[in-house]
Amino acid sequence: MCESNVYLQDGEKEVLIMESVDSIQPCENGVNLMDILGRQMFVPARIKAMTLLNHRIIIEKIS
Amino acid sequence: MCESNVYLQDGEKEVLIMESVDSIQPCENGVNLMDILGRQMFVPARIKAMTLLNHRIIIEKIS
Repeated sequence: MCESNVYLQDGEKEVLIMESVDSIQPCENGVNLMDILGRQMFVPARIKAMTLLNHRIIIEKIS
Repeated sequence: MCESNVYLQDGEKEVLIMESVDSIQPCENGVNLMDILGRQMFVPARIKAMTLLNHRIIIEKIS
């Protein structure tokens, strides 16, 4: 399965906020995440970087 | 392998612009893409939507 884990960058740390994310949709004020079970989460953040082979998506708060 | 294909939305169409993308890094004026072979491409576009299980990343031109 090719879902990714989403981490919120908080200073030096990266905090896992959602696992097994399938769908990511940026919108004006943040990103909408949905995992493989259909659970949804909105985070007021933007995508910073992704490495899909590592299943990692890093987002950072919109300042 | 969990790489994705990147499509540029052009009106109603979605044009495949890079296959087997591993890394995506948004920056101020666009996105930097890198595929699994290390080939890089810069596109003046923003991420519109991703569905990782379908290996699809849609980007749209920055207007």
